[in-house]
Amino acid sequence: MAGQHFPVTRLEGVSREQFMQHLYPQRKPLVLEGIDLGPCTSKWTVDYLSQVGGKKEVKIHVAAVAQMDFISKNFVYRSLPFDQLVQRAAEEKHKEFFVSEDEKYYLRSLGEDPRKVMDNLLIQVTGKKRVVLFSPRDAQYLYLKGTKSEVLNIDNPDLAKYPLFSKARRYECSLEAGDVLFIPALWFHNVISEEFGVGVNIFWKHLPSECYDKTDTYGNKDPTAASRAAQILDRALKTLAELPEEYRDFYARRMVLHIQDKAYSKNSE
Amino acid sequence: MAGQHFPVTRLEGVSREQFMQHLYPQRKPLVLEGIDLGPCTSKWTVDYLSQVGGKKEVKIHVAAVAQMDFISKNFVYRSLPFDQLVQRAAEEKHKEFFVSEDEKYYLRSLGEDPRKVMDNLLIQVTGKKRVVLFSPRDAQYLYLKGTKSEVLNIDNPDLAKYPLFSKARRYECSLEAGDVLFIPALWFHNVISEEFGVGVNIFWKHLPSECYDKTDTYGNKDPTAASRAAQILDRALKTLAELPEEYRDFYARRMVLHIQDKAYSKNSE
Repeated sequence: MAGQHFPVTRLEGVSREQFMQHLYPQRKPLVLEGIDLGPCTSKWTVDYLSQVGGKKEVKIHVAAVAQMDFISKNFVYRSLPFDQLVQRAAEEKHKEFFVSEDEKYYLRSLGEDPRKVMDNLLIQVTGKKRVVLFSPRDAQYLYLKGTKSEVLNIDNPDLAKYPLFSKARRYECSLEAGDVLFIPALWFHNVISEEFGVGVNIFWKHLPSECYDKTDTYGNKDPTAASRAAQILDRALKTLAELPEEYRDFYARRMVLHIQDKAYSKNSE
Repeated sequence: MAGQHFPVTRLEGVSREQFMQHLYPQRKPLVLEGIDLGPCTSKWTVDYLSQVGGKKEVKIHVAAVAQMDFISKNFVYRSLPFDQLVQRAAEEKHKEFFVSEDEKYYLRSLGEDPRKVMDNLLIQVTGKKRVVLFSPRDAQYLYLKGTKSEVLNIDNPDLAKYPLFSKARRYECSLEAGDVLFIPALWFHNVISEEFGVGVNIFWKHLPSECYDKTDTYGNKDPTAASRAAQILDRALKTLAELPEEYRDFYARRMVLHIQDKAYSKNSE
């Protein structure tokens, strides 16, 4: 059974006011076309970036395949001067390489984890990306390990291992230079770079700032109410663990039904 | 899709020691045949019961159909002298009746609810019953309202309304005079009396007595650890309710995955 596929809606010429008043509150991914990004989309060529970026050493992810796996870590960390990185990343085959002549490079300028609880605009300045998104409502089909999905090969998933994955609704888009993708907080995203390119992510807090952990520099942490609820739940499970297995199992199922009844959204979209 | 059907295992000539050491710990329903029940199976006829039971008024359930619905309450409470009740209950059609000439009667000598958290021996003294049981592991397919299933017409369920019901594994047996059915604590049971008869239920506590609520006269209440866990969970849900709907939904799903991982039994039988 193949999962449902949806294209991400694309809109051209959206004003800031239209976005903020009508589109942003819908909490759905959206590709904005024709946004005025200034001269960067034509100016940030390989040569230009090599030149202005200079020789400062940068730490990069290097993997033999395009799909980096942040659970099993199929990549290694290496360093290169910035200008060399840009040159190499733009090559089809590498004469000099760390792991293979087809290796891929990824330079991330900030922390390790995607910002799960912040809203995000992914600005595709140059190059092409394919992005597949999944709704937080489908979290139970994604085989999460922490906040990441174990299913990496989303185009040819191992359905014997991940049978529920076929139920996840898949939202897909291709980004070209100049496109801006709105990724609402909590949406899962799987990104393949189809050619060398530069993406700029803008993150901002969706909820009032008092909802977030004050020590959360990178915006990766759960809202404080969610962390507290998880801690309280652990106390409930510790209490339940006093019972023999069959009772624990039964009352755990009752708890799940209660959560589904009280806290799940009635709207499944 | 029809659910899986299993016959309840029937065993003849089981000794008390065999039952306690080998069968009881398996926590599965079981029909014991040929247990020495004394003379009651032949002695408790309609005439004998009318005679020894006398004219004491008893409160009974009266319903137009055999399947009494303890959620919507499709029955009425009435009173009859015990001897008249026995006579009426043994008739095919009633000349005197409360709701219809086909009405069914049920006399229960103790509290209203089935004893969900106690082990139970249902001794079929006279008459015939058909009993269908469902494992507590299948609670999520039974559309529970409190501790009772909304699905009453289990032979022809409304699968448009109760689609998951077809996943519930069904254990079935027919009881005749002299049969004794072991119903482990937490197992759901659906009983149809196929003719007039008398059943005697023996309930006893499976867990050490300190696990139960001391005010629980009828053995209907959840073990105290389960009640406490449910109360703690309510606090967690109250905390989660501080978040907007989409976050609440997402973190509720994460909580469910956590419960399934930590508290569900790995053995699905």
